Amino acid sequence: VTAVKTKPKTTAGNFFDSFHLGQEIRHATPRTVTTGDVAIYNALYGARFALQTSDEFARGCGLARSPMDDICAFHIIFGKTVPDVSINAMANLGYADCRFLKPLYPGDTINTVTKVIGLKQNSNGKTGIVYVRSTGYNQRKETVLDYVRWVMVYKKDPASPAPDPVVPDLPSVVSADSLVVPEGLDFSKYDTVLGGSEFLWEDYETGEKIDHVDGRTIAESEHMMATRISENNARIHFDDYGQKPTRYGQRLVFGGHVISTARALSYNGLANACFVAAINGGRHVNPSFGGDTVYCWSEILDKAEIKGRRDVGALRVRTVATKDRACADFPGKTADGEYDSSVTLDLDYWVFMPRRV
Amino acid sequence: VTAVKTKPKTTAGNFFDSFHLGQEIRHATPRTVTTGDVAIYNALYGARFALQTSDEFARGCGLARSPMDDICAFHIIFGKTVPDVSINAMANLGYADCRFLKPLYPGDTINTVTKVIGLKQNSNGKTGIVYVRSTGYNQRKETVLDYVRWVMVYKKDPASPAPDPVVPDLPSVVSADSLVVPEGLDFSKYDTVLGGSEFLWEDYETGEKIDHVDGRTIAESEHMMATRISENNARIHFDDYGQKPTRYGQRLVFGGHVISTARALSYNGLANACFVAAINGGRHVNPSFGGDTVYCWSEILDKAEIKGRRDVGALRVRTVATKDRACADFPGKTADGEYDSSVTLDLDYWVFMPRRV
Amino acid sequence: VTAVKTKPKTTAGNFFDSFHLGQEIRHATPRTVTTGDVAIYNALYGARFALQTSDEFARGCGLARSPMDDICAFHIIFGKTVPDVSINAMANLGYADCRFLKPLYPGDTINTVTKVIGLKQNSNGKTGIVYVRSTGYNQRKETVLDYVRWVMVYKKDPASPAPDPVVPDLPSVVSADSLVVPEGLDFSKYDTVLGGSEFLWEDYETGEKIDHVDGRTIAESEHMMATRISENNARIHFDDYGQKPTRYGQRLVFGGHVISTARALSYNGLANACFVAAINGGRHVNPSFGGDTVYCWSEILDKAEIKGRRDVGALRVRTVATKDRACADFPGKTADGEYDSSVTLDLDYWVFMPRRV
Repeated sequence: VTAVKTKPKTTAGNFFDSFHLGQEIRHATPRTVTTGDVAIYNALYGARFALQTSDEFARGCGLARSPMDDICAFHIIFGKTVPDVSINAMANLGYADCRFLKPLYPGDTINTVTKVIGLKQNSNGKTGIVYVRSTGYNQRKETVLDYVRWVMVYKKDPASPAPDPVVPDLPSVVSADSLVVPEGLDFSKYDTVLGGSEFLWEDYETGEKIDHVDGRTIAESEHMMATRISENNARIHFDDYGQKPTRYGQRLVFGGHVISTARALSYNGLANACFVAAINGGRHVNPSFGGDTVYCWSEILDKAEIKGRRDVGALRVRTVATKDRACADFPGKTADGEYDSSVTLDLDYWVFMPRRV
Repeated sequence: VTAVKTKPKTTAGNFFDSFHLGQEIRHATPRTVTTGDVAIYNALYGARFALQTSDEFARGCGLARSPMDDICAFHIIFGKTVPDVSINAMANLGYADCRFLKPLYPGDTINTVTKVIGLKQNSNGKTGIVYVRSTGYNQRKETVLDYVRWVMVYKKDPASPAPDPVVPDLPSVVSADSLVVPEGLDFSKYDTVLGGSEFLWEDYETGEKIDHVDGRTIAESEHMMATRISENNARIHFDDYGQKPTRYGQRLVFGGHVISTARALSYNGLANACFVAAINGGRHVNPSFGGDTVYCWSEILDKAEIKGRRDVGALRVRTVATKDRACADFPGKTADGEYDSSVTLDLDYWVFMPRRV
Repeated sequence: VTAVKTKPKTTAGNFFDSFHLGQEIRHATPRTVTTGDVAIYNALYGARFALQTSDEFARGCGLARSPMDDICAFHIIFGKTVPDVSINAMANLGYADCRFLKPLYPGDTINTVTKVIGLKQNSNGKTGIVYVRSTGYNQRKETVLDYVRWVMVYKKDPASPAPDPVVPDLPSVVSADSLVVPEGLDFSKYDTVLGGSEFLWEDYETGEKIDHVDGRTIAESEHMMATRISENNARIHFDDYGQKPTRYGQRLVFGGHVISTARALSYNGLANACFVAAINGGRHVNPSFGGDTVYCWSEILDKAEIKGRRDVGALRVRTVATKDRACADFPGKTADGEYDSSVTLDLDYWVFMPRRV
């Protein structure tokens, strides 16, 4: 066999020194979401939020049909960015300013575009932090959601010059004023019995903590299927053999799988939190592995009225997930400011909930 | 952090002393079923009954399209009752008088309502038996199916007074006269080649036993996905960590997963048993766990003509499932009246099958 | 219990001595494919070929919507033949002359018909080789695909006479002239950014080798779900208990699962290889088991223009999959003509790829 000289066809993805400020990346693999995707998402998480599971219930709330679960939409839009943004990341550092602007419906086609909004080389000269704003569009070019994340990425050539450091100014919390209630939504006839809880926006108080009680054990194939729904191709989640020599010795669970599991578990205590309106920030505190059991608890961080609306309000919620540890005593940060070793996720977000009318 | 005093938001579910005779419970989480749910059900069980897998075949039998698998419909309607009826159950004691009245089609939305029809406290004063009739409706308020089950549930307060004992009078077998043939169904041009077997209603005899030959090993994620399709949230099936201190030391497989697996395996021997018409009774004799291999066999208990129909008849079938034991010798109850230790399920039901015309 | 004498209802399937030359078998279980099946296929393989994941992208290429993945269509058509052709096979020996003639779309209903085109008893008198041509049709009786395979099957009665040996003359490669471009397909405005690679037909050279880099670990439930999507009921894939006494001691992964995994991994390097046009041949070199990690590499064996088309060309690709071994050095046959022990699959096929216009 004679060696053929052509350009290598395999994409290695971008490294820190591949990015430049202001760069815009149109991501590959547009995706039409279907009731099939919804069904798999339900089979993986067993979410019971009535608005997302019943077209009739959604119509009773003024929508044309059940929208897709917001977190699922987030994962799909996120997943497209992985091959270009984080395939060479050594750490996913944070999220900010994520707003859900338009529900995603079965039949919609999603595209994602990312803009590089910050770059800062680390002092070791081998890695740097890339800040990106990614936007998911539907087939009508309407923005479905928009968010910022920052990742630590390896440099391809450690000798390449450091860019001028630019760190974007990011809000620690999405302003309640900027939350967007889905078009047409009307909670004035919301059915709390079918919704699964008598508790509405008025019944929650800032500072209140809720143990979501139930636990869910993560099966290997479930987290891999979940990761593939969003076409997230990060090797670390799929290649158990390749992970053997690493410090974990096995494949890691996609962080989004823990978010989705926690969101589904939070139904017991937040059953009427129909929509995720924004993600203020989030941290994957510890990795999860197949066989771990996820528990979680939530704290109400804030409440906000929605301008011009008597039927819907917003709750700012912090949900903390653990592994192999029940959450009756709300494990989080300990006195020394460190997280309890069981904590895997600390997520800060806004939800919409019907008000008492 | 100051403790906030509000009503606890988490539902603990009902205990024996929460129920009262005649009580009606509208269950949460209405559910629109889709071709996505059908696809997952097929991927989990590999059912090959032609009427449920081909829209064209269903149209050839007078239906508008393929209906959902009856047992899947049963699980979805059943699942809604779990948070209110059996989340605090220590045992699922039995089923009776279950009739399938209307096929469920993709696009239909299901609601379930339950009525408490019996209550009997146990002599230990700590538990009691609750008898309920649950009814699944579609979006046109048509009854899809109706069944009775009874469960042993813990009391919340052992000191609470015992209710007057009421035990409903339940039929040991659904009368063949009350079976409802799906509207429009016409088996006069049934294609036995595509159906997968030359054998029709006339070919089966009361007392005949059939070994379904094949075995299916249960994977952990499969039984959990199956359980979530029906939004059944019983902890015992999902929380492996929480189950460690129990006598089983691990999560248990949802009994419905064994029913569905056995129904799918029964195709080899009962390929033209297109519809489940009724469930007369059933018992989960032993629990199943991930890794168990399911085998099963069936016995024809009875045959019935359907009034006014020459194209369809009913067979009363008993299907017995085992774990890790082939069924060539039809293991069931032994001479001393006890079940063979391999038996996990003993189900008594009616099916519809085409007649020779 | 008195024994009832009726014909046995369980199908044992065909043995070598059940087949005769020219025999035509209409297979059971017609199947309507849906967006649910597509969603599960995507969740199992994470394929990122834009044409199959976005209806909008497909419309931009002249099609009505996204067609189903070709390999998925192949598995579904193949799966129907298993109960009649290979349930008693001791080995799946080969494939040839497989052409994809019409894309399969969600909503289509598939039937498969098989013709016996060759028979040759082995000298041991206990087994024989059956050659069959299987054809998948949609509900309009249009041929979706057509292929030949040959399997070694046990005889039921070793004393039965050997048939006259007939071995069909099969092409080692499907002629490029006979490849059929999907009706309506127009690649003149193909978007390489959304497609995921800048490389088009012109950029690949015969002899070029591509390491697809990524690895995917096979989970037990994933390969079983994949096998059931196609209603393939071969026991060897499902019955772990029954496999314990065999030389493998456990269930084997359906060979098609490895093909689909390799096809999905090949996206990284062949992102614009939108359609599989033909399968020239293939061999499952070694069995795979749950827990194995699949890697693969490809070689461009040939290139062909398509008569009358400037927008699309064909590449003949050989994809070799391994288990637990990365493919940077392209493991295949060693100097002595034997396969490296890590190799599980050696597949030779044609793909269509857009040309530079």
